Amino acid sequence: MVYVMGYGLIEKFFYPDSVAVVGASRDPRKVGYQLLYNLITKYRGVVYPINPYVDEVLGIKAYRSVMDVPGGIDLAVVSVPAQSVPSALEECGLKGVKAAIIISAGFKELGTSEGVEGEKKVVEIARRFGMRVVGPNCMGVYVPKIGLNTTFLNPERMDFPGHGNIAFISQSGAFGIAVLDWAAMRGIGISKFISLGNKCDVNESDILNYLVEDGDTQVITLYIEGVEDGKEFVKTLKEVTPLKPVIILKAGRSEEGVRAIVSHTGSLAGSDAIYDAVFKQSGAIRALGMDELFDMALSLALQPPAKGMRVGILTVGGGSGVMATDAAVSLGLRVPKLSDRTVSKLRDVLLPIASPYNPVDVTGSARDEHLIESVEILMRSGEVDAIIWIPYFMAPGITSELVSSFIERVRKVNNELEIPIPIVGAATGGYYTQKLSTMVEREGIPMYPTVERAAKAAWTLCKYGEWLRKSRTYAEYVNRFLSPTRYLEKTGLS
Amino acid sequence: MVYVMGYGLIEKFFYPDSVAVVGASRDPRKVGYQLLYNLITKYRGVVYPINPYVDEVLGIKAYRSVMDVPGGIDLAVVSVPAQSVPSALEECGLKGVKAAIIISAGFKELGTSEGVEGEKKVVEIARRFGMRVVGPNCMGVYVPKIGLNTTFLNPERMDFPGHGNIAFISQSGAFGIAVLDWAAMRGIGISKFISLGNKCDVNESDILNYLVEDGDTQVITLYIEGVEDGKEFVKTLKEVTPLKPVIILKAGRSEEGVRAIVSHTGSLAGSDAIYDAVFKQSGAIRALGMDELFDMALSLALQPPAKGMRVGILTVGGGSGVMATDAAVSLGLRVPKLSDRTVSKLRDVLLPIASPYNPVDVTGSARDEHLIESVEILMRSGEVDAIIWIPYFMAPGITSELVSSFIERVRKVNNELEIPIPIVGAATGGYYTQKLSTMVEREGIPMYPTVERAAKAAWTLCKYGEWLRKSRTYAEYVNRFLSPTRYLEKTGLS
Repeated sequence: MVYVMGYGLIEKFFYPDSVAVVGASRDPRKVGYQLLYNLITKYRGVVYPINPYVDEVLGIKAYRSVMDVPGGIDLAVVSVPAQSVPSALEECGLKGVKAAIIISAGFKELGTSEGVEGEKKVVEIARRFGMRVVGPNCMGVYVPKIGLNTTFLNPERMDFPGHGNIAFISQSGAFGIAVLDWAAMRGIGISKFISLGNKCDVNESDILNYLVEDGDTQVITLYIEGVEDGKEFVKTLKEVTPLKPVIILKAGRSEEGVRAIVSHTGSLAGSDAIYDAVFKQSGAIRALGMDELFDMALSLALQPPAKGMRVGILTVGGGSGVMATDAAVSLGLRVPKLSDRTVSKLRDVLLPIASPYNPVDVTGSARDEHLIESVEILMRSGEVDAIIWIPYFMAPGITSELVSSFIERVRKVNNELEIPIPIVGAATGGYYTQKLSTMVEREGIPMYPTVERAAKAAWTLCKYGEWLRKSRTYAEYVNRFLSPTRYLEKTGLS
Repeated sequence: MVYVMGYGLIEKFFYPDSVAVVGASRDPRKVGYQLLYNLITKYRGVVYPINPYVDEVLGIKAYRSVMDVPGGIDLAVVSVPAQSVPSALEECGLKGVKAAIIISAGFKELGTSEGVEGEKKVVEIARRFGMRVVGPNCMGVYVPKIGLNTTFLNPERMDFPGHGNIAFISQSGAFGIAVLDWAAMRGIGISKFISLGNKCDVNESDILNYLVEDGDTQVITLYIEGVEDGKEFVKTLKEVTPLKPVIILKAGRSEEGVRAIVSHTGSLAGSDAIYDAVFKQSGAIRALGMDELFDMALSLALQPPAKGMRVGILTVGGGSGVMATDAAVSLGLRVPKLSDRTVSKLRDVLLPIASPYNPVDVTGSARDEHLIESVEILMRSGEVDAIIWIPYFMAPGITSELVSSFIERVRKVNNELEIPIPIVGAATGGYYTQKLSTMVEREGIPMYPTVERAAKAAWTLCKYGEWLRKSRTYAEYVNRFLSPTRYLEKTGLS
């Protein structure tokens, strides 16, 4: 599974100057039509439709074969029936194409000897020509920065997210697509998406090795069902996680789930306990569902990791403060009592009915300044390593001005502190609350609809900070994270 | 805490013919203004603003005191400064008012002897006049069916949900309000909302006893921090849960959370282990967060409880099927292998590449009929007690027609079966997916954005079914649930 010069070629999948669509079709019901349609919507590189029977597709000159294309081809996207894939790939090899995505299904996943043989042929051809292959049975790639989109879903039924700093590697195409659509609605930006499918050649480790160097990627997320080369995967994770966080949603936690994987992909799923141990040893953070995967990713995309496990909770609603405490403690975080000195400072700025302990409950009668002064006191106290704030935007004394003045104060204090204090928020409510939460998030503080999810996000920042300290890369990471040129572009929220 | 004729009076809080707002104000910055404003927006009963200094408020004739009101007063909503509450309540008593909501804060929750004394006075007056009191320090009630709304939040900053069959009792006012706002956005209808505040008189048990008889309430949800009269609470829960499901979000799961409750409400929180045991013994279902509380409630509001713990999973995406399996198994549900007979029936209707086991993976190439035929086979198999379906609405072969034809088939089969098979769904995606999910939900199948949440919903139906079987009320409950006159009105989704 090791190719000479292999990793360098991975770049071709994400930044090709020219793309050939092998199997481009004029029939809107065909994958080869929708794929070309999605590709030319935003991609500004050269596109070559390949179709032996027609002169043009969607207004673009078509070629009978990749061999007939006058210029070079950086990436071939193959969407022809499974039995025609080997010959199409062979032609790509002869043409000198070094990167191919095979969208077509009908290979190993069928569990038939025919399917397995077909996939072996694909691998043989790829090796012979020194070509890297993504797939088969996949959705390919989506790189919003350059408009590259090799998926074939109807854009009337789904949206694609904007550019951001979270990369998403998915073994499952369908789930990957659903997540892209969800991320677009949620306003989460993506640096690179890749659907790996059957992984006959390019696998998670190849992509991880590429993404660790990718300047646009701050956080790497993965959905996997099984990994073939476990040793390589562990080695790669160990290399990557001290530099960039890797969050993994691994399906097949249960015996029944493993059984389902086998009948779904034909791949070896392996014991879940082993995966769990691998993730722990190698510093990968495990998510137990889609929400968690992106809740965690968002926190690491926007906030620096925490230097310890102590959380301060700042809330407008007493009940929410209690529930946030419950959630934080159940995750293994500490919600420490504050020192008398800090309590007294808080008491000086809060209403008499407020509770200046931890959680700091400014109460529903609070005004903007109570939250703003309290957060500074908490940040400077040296008694907490991360903060969960729970504004109730509908509370009578809270104004929409709170958003900018709170953020400004947090930034100012963090600029003055030697080690920054990360902050995440929770705001339960409807449209008005969502609107203000989005404003907060655009300025770099991730906001969640429940305190439980905010607590998990805070936990993620604490846990990754712990790993970085263990790896002795904490200071380096935080410095890189906070470098001013990246502050604005890194949010990538739309 | 037991009053003669006490429970009958609870009706006055939810269905008053006349409401006096004691402390109605003409100043838009005051609670007494916003409260009256919200009340008169939709409520069609008689409203009496009480204010000694003005003749009218918001265009309605005002009275100096409740004593001056010509007609009877079913409900008094008191929003005057804490020190004036006792005298205002005394006048209510003299007037013959039997139900009062005290919105005002400044009582026991302060933790001061003054606050505690004030609250004692309130209780003494209530007892003397045989009056029931909700609060103090609460948001009161919201009953969309009659437009009754005693909350004082600015409607420009939050929405209120429509009528539905889920009741919500909240100890916390702020959290209660945030949840109402969220429910409105989520399209979840509410039968009754009540914020109990300090619970000086009316408590959870009073409301549970009322709601168990309430024809509009199918599911009862509670947010609590602590219960004073534990014995009464357990007794009530044991009486209610065999008839209606009760789902409880109890804050203070951790020691630190309990500490926060004490400083937030001054109430005894008690050991969480005891609560946990109480919930288990009495058939109450425990939710660990707001999402869960309403995910569970929605499943029980729309679907019958399951007759066993076996779940069938029907999916368009293989990966999602695996994750749903993981989630179901981790909750203690079974995802059984299907018999050869059922597998063979499924194989007959599915594509060759589909996986006819459990999960039944119709694949991303599926068309509507593959889901429709499969669900019937699963429902009739006798091998599963509940179904999780995972349509990918963006898949090329799936049309928007699927919604109505799938629902129609499920209804038809359930009408023919002796014991109905409940079904819940998961659809991850963006706006298009949400739109179709909402359509499905309006027809009575709850839909969740992740498979993990759908699995928890299925678990809820299985778990409550188990409790009903234990209580020997399963058949009665299901018959009542399925009575045709209630089928349409019960969804209450907007």
